[in-house]
Amino acid sequence: MIRIGVDVGGTGIQIGVVDEGYNIIRESSIPTRADLPFEEQVRQIADCIVSTVRDAGFAENDIESVGVGIPGIASAKTGEIIKCTNMGWFHVPFREVFRRFLDKPVHIDNDANVAALAESVAGVSAGTSSSVFITIGTGIGSGIIIDGRIWSGAHHIGGELGHVIFDLDGVPCTCGNHGCLERYCSATALIRMAREAVAEHPDSLILTSVGNDPSRIEAKTVFDAARAEDPLALSVYSRYIDCLAQAIGSVVNLLDPEVIVLGGGVSKAGSFLLDPLTREYSRYVLFNDQPLPPVRLAVLGSEAGIIGAAMLS
Amino acid sequence: MIRIGVDVGGTGIQIGVVDEGYNIIRESSIPTRADLPFEEQVRQIADCIVSTVRDAGFAENDIESVGVGIPGIASAKTGEIIKCTNMGWFHVPFREVFRRFLDKPVHIDNDANVAALAESVAGVSAGTSSSVFITIGTGIGSGIIIDGRIWSGAHHIGGELGHVIFDLDGVPCTCGNHGCLERYCSATALIRMAREAVAEHPDSLILTSVGNDPSRIEAKTVFDAARAEDPLALSVYSRYIDCLAQAIGSVVNLLDPEVIVLGGGVSKAGSFLLDPLTREYSRYVLFNDQPLPPVRLAVLGSEAGIIGAAMLS
Repeated sequence: MIRIGVDVGGTGIQIGVVDEGYNIIRESSIPTRADLPFEEQVRQIADCIVSTVRDAGFAENDIESVGVGIPGIASAKTGEIIKCTNMGWFHVPFREVFRRFLDKPVHIDNDANVAALAESVAGVSAGTSSSVFITIGTGIGSGIIIDGRIWSGAHHIGGELGHVIFDLDGVPCTCGNHGCLERYCSATALIRMAREAVAEHPDSLILTSVGNDPSRIEAKTVFDAARAEDPLALSVYSRYIDCLAQAIGSVVNLLDPEVIVLGGGVSKAGSFLLDPLTREYSRYVLFNDQPLPPVRLAVLGSEAGIIGAAMLS
Repeated sequence: MIRIGVDVGGTGIQIGVVDEGYNIIRESSIPTRADLPFEEQVRQIADCIVSTVRDAGFAENDIESVGVGIPGIASAKTGEIIKCTNMGWFHVPFREVFRRFLDKPVHIDNDANVAALAESVAGVSAGTSSSVFITIGTGIGSGIIIDGRIWSGAHHIGGELGHVIFDLDGVPCTCGNHGCLERYCSATALIRMAREAVAEHPDSLILTSVGNDPSRIEAKTVFDAARAEDPLALSVYSRYIDCLAQAIGSVVNLLDPEVIVLGGGVSKAGSFLLDPLTREYSRYVLFNDQPLPPVRLAVLGSEAGIIGAAMLS
């Protein structure tokens, strides 16, 4: 038997055939066409699944289930997509419409939740029954796994660690509030900290390494300069690590999962990110004389979207 | 059949016989004697259970299970109490020792978790499968119910909402960190805010109503003065409500339970607390155009400790 994972993104929809060992054995994609009527979008996804399955040497009958990860919120129970702004989908009965084209069990969830599930089934947290997956990119996404299942809340709006208040009356957030956690822990936050710092100290390697153009500073710019022991970069890096350590400590104080998994662009810094975090987060845990969850890097990368969707049940 | 609930506190241990309708049909207590050897403490609890059961007109055979709520952390799985500072218990095999005196199924959990369970089984959140219980007193305690069961974490150290970072580099906390949520949302926080405010405006009713002695200001002092429309009290009250609203919004963003339950001393302010919170917390929720959890007041009061312990399984 095979399972189908569908990863709906802003520019493209990735479709993968996943075997029982959680391997993607065939993959294809179609462009995101938010301009088309909903039913036509769904038909194109179903058609692409059918052809991808055939190309992989299987028949429709071999499909056990179809899972879909979306950048938005959905009811895992009813199969309704509640809100998916990129696609222009608001309260659309995805499962019902999809099954007109391909009559298989259909499961839908948020993309960060799906990635969390993927890591907990086939990735770095495989074998654990609880984990919190934190994806550190432009913003902060997260997915909570409890008792082996995604916990996205009673109204499907949970798992938004990025918008937990972290600094009362702090930096304005894109969501309209102030002091949200992602304003201090995302790649965007690291870049903001670096830009503020180089405005005071323009001789830093952070700035000279990007031709003195602050708009070209990326997360990697800061990590590279810190690795080269540029003093300003070390100070920005150290502050950023401290913010992340406080965020992880908070997650442990509230949820205490078996493992914390970090993904997203910033996690590419590898042990340069992980080692100090692992060392420092425990000071922010109330019961830090007890065994604590390890912090690990996600391993599935961009495949997590397809694998996790295929594992939805 | 009856179930036994034991509520271990700093000064006394309450023991209750609970019937199938979640009523406490008989209650007794023994003083907390942290000076006695552990085995003797446990024996006294078991003896008191046996006599209370008899006084209630039942026999030992009628006891289905014994549940114990403690101010500390315990492994629900192994029955070990990991840490209960008040009692001087560290890594003690409670279940094993208890069963030498009374051989019944024994369940142990943290007292805030137990109260959360009580409300979700027999109290204001009865009939829901997920809830977050927040007890607002000297500090902030909390208990998380997911799928009808307590979630206290993989290492039994979760559910500590009070020590989630809420104000980066903020007010020092008793735990050694800065900016913990309970520094802004507990009764202690409200009193601190009031004392700071009256230092600038000593003519406020907050201060005059306690004979101009700031050390006598309690949470109720502030609520009463705000009800009387004292301008300074209204401003402190409004700031405090805003902090609590941000805390509740954060809980919803991360966990999105079916219902939020408020208990503890501050919750006695009733609708004067609940109404503005209900009105205002949604602005701190990311997906606030969706159905949101209602905020309700706990109804079981001090009985929650016994009832919830009895319901442990």
